[in-house]
Amino acid sequence: MNIKITGTGCYIPSEKESNSAFLQHEFFDSDGVPFDTPNETIIEKFEAITGIAERRYAKTELNTSDIAFVAAENAIKDSGIDPETLDYIIVAHNLGDVNHDSIQGDIIPCLAARVKHKLNISNPKCVAYDLIFGCPGWVEGLIQAQAFIRAGMARKCLVIGAEILSRVTDRHDRDSMIFSDGAGATVVESCEEDCGILAFESASYTRDEVGYLFNGGSYNRALPQNIRYIKMHGRKIYEFACIHVPQAMKECLDKSGISIDNVRKIFIHQANEKMDAAIIKRFYRLYNKPVPPGIMPMNIHKMGNSSVATIPTLLDMVKKGEIEQQSVHKGDVIIFASVGAGMNLNAVVYKC
Amino acid sequence: MNIKITGTGCYIPSEKESNSAFLQHEFFDSDGVPFDTPNETIIEKFEAITGIAERRYAKTELNTSDIAFVAAENAIKDSGIDPETLDYIIVAHNLGDVNHDSIQGDIIPCLAARVKHKLNISNPKCVAYDLIFGCPGWVEGLIQAQAFIRAGMARKCLVIGAEILSRVTDRHDRDSMIFSDGAGATVVESCEEDCGILAFESASYTRDEVGYLFNGGSYNRALPQNIRYIKMHGRKIYEFACIHVPQAMKECLDKSGISIDNVRKIFIHQANEKMDAAIIKRFYRLYNKPVPPGIMPMNIHKMGNSSVATIPTLLDMVKKGEIEQQSVHKGDVIIFASVGAGMNLNAVVYKC
Repeated sequence: MNIKITGTGCYIPSEKESNSAFLQHEFFDSDGVPFDTPNETIIEKFEAITGIAERRYAKTELNTSDIAFVAAENAIKDSGIDPETLDYIIVAHNLGDVNHDSIQGDIIPCLAARVKHKLNISNPKCVAYDLIFGCPGWVEGLIQAQAFIRAGMARKCLVIGAEILSRVTDRHDRDSMIFSDGAGATVVESCEEDCGILAFESASYTRDEVGYLFNGGSYNRALPQNIRYIKMHGRKIYEFACIHVPQAMKECLDKSGISIDNVRKIFIHQANEKMDAAIIKRFYRLYNKPVPPGIMPMNIHKMGNSSVATIPTLLDMVKKGEIEQQSVHKGDVIIFASVGAGMNLNAVVYKC
Repeated sequence: MNIKITGTGCYIPSEKESNSAFLQHEFFDSDGVPFDTPNETIIEKFEAITGIAERRYAKTELNTSDIAFVAAENAIKDSGIDPETLDYIIVAHNLGDVNHDSIQGDIIPCLAARVKHKLNISNPKCVAYDLIFGCPGWVEGLIQAQAFIRAGMARKCLVIGAEILSRVTDRHDRDSMIFSDGAGATVVESCEEDCGILAFESASYTRDEVGYLFNGGSYNRALPQNIRYIKMHGRKIYEFACIHVPQAMKECLDKSGISIDNVRKIFIHQANEKMDAAIIKRFYRLYNKPVPPGIMPMNIHKMGNSSVATIPTLLDMVKKGEIEQQSVHKGDVIIFASVGAGMNLNAVVYKC
């Protein structure tokens, strides 16, 4: 028995926020000291490193479970399944529903229950839960779905990654420019064909790394410090990711028995273009190979970093021919790889 | 291969809050109207229905991941395993870490990563994630752990339920008296003996029931309504639970092949004593049997409703002889059953 993705869908929020929207922001460093560099320079440097020119924000009336639902509907339609036959709905996120007028996350009930409600599924045996695993949550959901299928507990699972980061970013922190909103979904099913998940790897590095991504007070110390925003130690994350993600990808690929030469695409969590390129370069270096051109589809330039949503959104867009000069074909071997808060990371080698 | 619990542990918060502590609270109904009944009467009625005379609150300096860690340490010690051999750490909760001076939940990083950090585990292959499934989260974590073990992805899992509800309750809502803080943990392992999980059932009822438990503004309408607290439609939950939980328990027991006469104990999520008694009564009625005396161990009188923590805490206390006239012995068949936000519910038939 194999486990494959039979449908993909996404929701791209309608509001475009370009880098120039940040020109008027007052940025401080993590010690609360204003930068003496002008915002033009900060933003130029930001774009050169991350590749992000604009990002998407959800309209104020939408919440994470709303956009997760739209992505889910699209994935279900794409797969052609009857939603009543789903055994699991797994929603990966890291914030819960956050109303536009609030900074409080809301996971009562879990977002998966809200998505199931919106999908109007009545089958009570369709179990709806949320998975919190940092940015690698959607990939981990895929791994959990295959566990349920292999254990004989499920045949069809809906795995969603959705996040509205725009409501928990500190406008006084340069890193706020990275974050974006989005939702991606996939239907995962057992199959008898020679395709699907070939191997996977998951890891949690928590000894020294637990605080690399965290919630903290605004860098503008004049603001109440008990209101907390998403924060990161960018340099530490960069160094961590460049060492551990290529290793995990290699372990995973070697486990699958597939040769590096047969890898067609790598769908990596789009946190930062320079970091992603460095990870891929190091991955190929582990095999003493150059990076093949076009191996890493990207939409970060226009989409920013939408956490758990980046990979399933990108996959959906590539599958549907919406990313220039990028495509996947039946039989192609691809890799999913992600890293984020925890620090958690994972990789899946997958045959289309 | 079977899957059994090889260690249990809990953390009982040190601060006792008796019902009399609520005498001075100003209670309003869900329409924001003050009750004309005196608080003495409200509290008396509350105790008569829920069985709750006092509850435990965590000290201000402790957070959910802190108390989850203590419970985890106790469970690991009880099991005798080397924590470095754990394949998964699963933390069920519904609020994240909530600082005492805040109403914001924090799940970056996930609580499982924080617990793993505190346990000082360095093995990166020990995957740490959070599971959000309402009050049935700990039972669902047990079900997920067995999925990973059956799928060949794990041999040893740590499953924790932990919650500090005292920080998200509305002091103007009578239902705030129900909620309590606590943490319970279990080590789950594969075994070759004739024991462990015999059958399980999980369900999510989200069509009409999605809003039975929710976050909402204070019943004191003078307070800012965008600050939200845990809220419930008590009557609807009661009716829902009395219909669906006994059915799920019966399906589970019938699947296990065990006779109702051989069930020794039922560990039910302690939401409300009257409701729990009604569920058990209906369960036995489905078999045309009277409820055996002492079938349902309880600690709700002194512990309140600590959500995901009630069952693993109670199990630990019964195992260690800390609940009067209650015990479990090798070979005993017991049932775990839970219901909560989603609305989600589950049941596990288990042989000690």
